[in-house]
Amino acid sequence: MEPTNLLRQIEFIKEVDKLKYILRKTKLLNSDRNENDAEHSWHLSLMAIVLADHANAPINLLKVIKMLLIHDIVEIDAGDTFIYDTQKNHVNTEEERKAARRIFGLLPDDQANDLIAIWEEFEEGQTDEAKFARAMDRLEPLLQNTSNNGGTWNEFGVNYEKVYTKKQVIKQGSERIWQYAEQLINDSVERGILKK
Amino acid sequence: MEPTNLLRQIEFIKEVDKLKYILRKTKLLNSDRNENDAEHSWHLSLMAIVLADHANAPINLLKVIKMLLIHDIVEIDAGDTFIYDTQKNHVNTEEERKAARRIFGLLPDDQANDLIAIWEEFEEGQTDEAKFARAMDRLEPLLQNTSNNGGTWNEFGVNYEKVYTKKQVIKQGSERIWQYAEQLINDSVERGILKK
Repeated sequence: MEPTNLLRQIEFIKEVDKLKYILRKTKLLNSDRNENDAEHSWHLSLMAIVLADHANAPINLLKVIKMLLIHDIVEIDAGDTFIYDTQKNHVNTEEERKAARRIFGLLPDDQANDLIAIWEEFEEGQTDEAKFARAMDRLEPLLQNTSNNGGTWNEFGVNYEKVYTKKQVIKQGSERIWQYAEQLINDSVERGILKK
Repeated sequence: MEPTNLLRQIEFIKEVDKLKYILRKTKLLNSDRNENDAEHSWHLSLMAIVLADHANAPINLLKVIKMLLIHDIVEIDAGDTFIYDTQKNHVNTEEERKAARRIFGLLPDDQANDLIAIWEEFEEGQTDEAKFARAMDRLEPLLQNTSNNGGTWNEFGVNYEKVYTKKQVIKQGSERIWQYAEQLINDSVERGILKK
């Protein structure tokens, strides 16, 4: 690789520092402090390492982690979209595609193309790696909301049916983790922190 | 794996959320906001992906990323140690070993042993993976301090000689990145943000 490649990589590394300022709707465990996208991406990556054996199909763990480390980077330009937002369709909007081209485009071309392809694979959610990565992305806020007396479910009036439907994504990545998640959702109804 | 294993893994995943509260001395780029250990670990992991081709020796990137995702977890119990702290020797103190046993010990035994071994490999810094991971850990604060008018160098009176010595770790992981880092250190002296 040429020295100019290293300089482009450093520019990318500096640019993505901004992910530390993008706040999610969900709060840290037992906390009222919003989680930011960088912390979130770290947590999901570590979850993937620890939970990999529960995947429905054999997965390439390095690819899963790459997905999780970069999956929210487009939000530097496009902002965080709340999963239960009925106005905005989160699936790969033109705004996010443009953000991907700008931000990953800071890198040498081959790396930019690789990471954009990995990000698109995550968004499409069809491969075993994308399914497992997306399961991690759905599991973390479940742990957060159940620790926070309902968290965003209460704050934004999200009911059982919506949660149960959205969390089905976990099942596609891991039946075993889904059993745990389903129990957690049902317990939340019993505890009165999730409304039917 | 038994269901009890999943429950132990979930306990670990909840426990490490605390890493998001451990503040480092260094600040985000062009900012006066302290970086926390979770964001830091995310950033280093992504840097490793982007910069892997510059490693002095072929590396197992998955192992490097595992190291970087977990390298600061012991600070949940032991706290952040400033790299230029002259009172505390950072090299694998008994306090950190105890923290590793408690926190990774929440996991099923085989996973706990694996992650403790990876953490120790990082701390010892002898393998190609540990050398490259440690280079990432030294590079990030260099980018931060040079963007912050000297940052912790000015704040804690750290001079050129100390910085130059500590940053040699980068050279062990990547000669090419070291050339860039050395230039950045020398430029910092010229700019007057690092004292000789």
